[in-house]
Amino acid sequence: MSLPMRIEIHEEGPREGFQIEKPGFSIADRAGLVEALAQAGLPQIQVASFVNPVKVPQMADAPELFRAIRKQPGVRYTGLWLNEKGFERAVAVPEVDLEGVLYFYTSDAFCRLNNGVSAQAQAQDQRRWVERYAARGVPVRKAYVLTAFGCNFEGAIPQERLKEVLADMASLQDEHRIRLDEVYLADTVGWANPRSVSERVELARRFFPHARIGLHLHDTRGTGMANALAGLQAGVDLFDASVAGLGGCPFSGHAHGGAAGNICTEDLVFMCNEMGLETGIDLECLIEAARLAERIIGRRLDGRVMHSGSLKAFPTRSR
Amino acid sequence: MSLPMRIEIHEEGPREGFQIEKPGFSIADRAGLVEALAQAGLPQIQVASFVNPVKVPQMADAPELFRAIRKQPGVRYTGLWLNEKGFERAVAVPEVDLEGVLYFYTSDAFCRLNNGVSAQAQAQDQRRWVERYAARGVPVRKAYVLTAFGCNFEGAIPQERLKEVLADMASLQDEHRIRLDEVYLADTVGWANPRSVSERVELARRFFPHARIGLHLHDTRGTGMANALAGLQAGVDLFDASVAGLGGCPFSGHAHGGAAGNICTEDLVFMCNEMGLETGIDLECLIEAARLAERIIGRRLDGRVMHSGSLKAFPTRSR
Repeated sequence: MSLPMRIEIHEEGPREGFQIEKPGFSIADRAGLVEALAQAGLPQIQVASFVNPVKVPQMADAPELFRAIRKQPGVRYTGLWLNEKGFERAVAVPEVDLEGVLYFYTSDAFCRLNNGVSAQAQAQDQRRWVERYAARGVPVRKAYVLTAFGCNFEGAIPQERLKEVLADMASLQDEHRIRLDEVYLADTVGWANPRSVSERVELARRFFPHARIGLHLHDTRGTGMANALAGLQAGVDLFDASVAGLGGCPFSGHAHGGAAGNICTEDLVFMCNEMGLETGIDLECLIEAARLAERIIGRRLDGRVMHSGSLKAFPTRSR
Repeated sequence: MSLPMRIEIHEEGPREGFQIEKPGFSIADRAGLVEALAQAGLPQIQVASFVNPVKVPQMADAPELFRAIRKQPGVRYTGLWLNEKGFERAVAVPEVDLEGVLYFYTSDAFCRLNNGVSAQAQAQDQRRWVERYAARGVPVRKAYVLTAFGCNFEGAIPQERLKEVLADMASLQDEHRIRLDEVYLADTVGWANPRSVSERVELARRFFPHARIGLHLHDTRGTGMANALAGLQAGVDLFDASVAGLGGCPFSGHAHGGAAGNICTEDLVFMCNEMGLETGIDLECLIEAARLAERIIGRRLDGRVMHSGSLKAFPTRSR
């Protein structure tokens, strides 16, 4: 089994987790969780989103949260925004490590819901984002294809549609003389399977032969870790993940099937460790962070290794 | 990605699930679950174990349970026993589909705990089981290697140790002129990773080139489905699994890390379906069985697809 030797994992839990919970978790608790994640060796942590405080009151105090964190050198503390207003709010907080990220959608319906515009208008708008970022001196190195596998509104997304989006992204690169170093395929609502991951990573690589391909996988239907393995086997060395599997919605019932978290960070680190792949993350320390997340949220979370423990505590057989 | 076209999945949930719960679940409920699983197309269902009713009161009514089930033609309803007494109790129930299964252990400590004898004594005892089964006219076609990857008492099990056990199993085959058609590697307490699955399946195949290799995987540390994928990629077409992920122990806390269920049947079927592999199982019907299991147990179970739903309900994109 030929796999990349070094895997980079970015943490999404603090944002993905608390944005679906009731508002009211203290800044001290959330800053403490971010600090514990940095302590464990996560190189990049998405702390919060700068979105409409009326629509998402959980994230209204994002600036205060960023300011409360005792930052660790070498760790990037990032934020998310969906429009110019959000970006300007983020720019006003010097503690935010600004990243110029572009977002493309294969699904029109999903894009309209998430961004209020068609997928094509969103793709056009990314041109303006390149300029907006340039004006602020924020380098654009990274792009996501959301709903890269399927979407609950449009169903399975054919490869041809993904190809169109990738081709458009490649044109944008040429038009604006930028270089996307990292191209992520996002399985936003759990439509990927190991075979489609394998095929679509290959496809993305054909359009971006010099970029690192990243995966953002939600474990909506139990295939998250198998999809991650398929990604590793296709040479992917860049993953988003969520501590303790934060971001799921255990009490939402069958109707909100889409609402499941990212693949679990410590389970992914465990799997990498066991296969001899280096992540730079201290698993024991990360498990403590996951347990902290569980204490803060106040109910059992989905992560497995955080409950079972790693294999470190057990004897090494001498024979 | 080259994978077997047809996958056979055996259901372990009714035994694995209820043996760790408090006693007192009604025969009607448990029989109903078995019937729902048969309805969904599971070709083999392990209904209960014939073990010491004082030690495991949950299984004391195994004979009554077997008798209560309205059986479906073509489905095998199996039981488990650890000693002669248990076997004789099972033989006395004509509703049990008797299977002559042999059990080997790589871990001495685990074997002593589970069976009260050393791994070597257990292996010797398997010779007597061959005779015992022959005397009752029960064919011996199947063998398990328990703790084939590691064990919480002895740590990681080296490949050399697994090799010894496989070699011994192969000798038993020759000594007794039987043929093991199915050889299972069991990751009894969650020590496997995709790489070790791949390597050890190959190893088993070297000793049993004409047998089907099966996998019995527990999802203790979140790698269960990735391990299953590695198995599929190594050509494995025979899996044990547990509806709704039954068998876990969500309230056992960190101390009982070993107590996690098998990989979840409907999540595995979902993954197979999505990759175009045939299981003969009706996923929608199986999801209903998983939801029935959740209603019977009375708390949220670990399965994912049972909560998110399959992808069947969503539109197929026409373009």
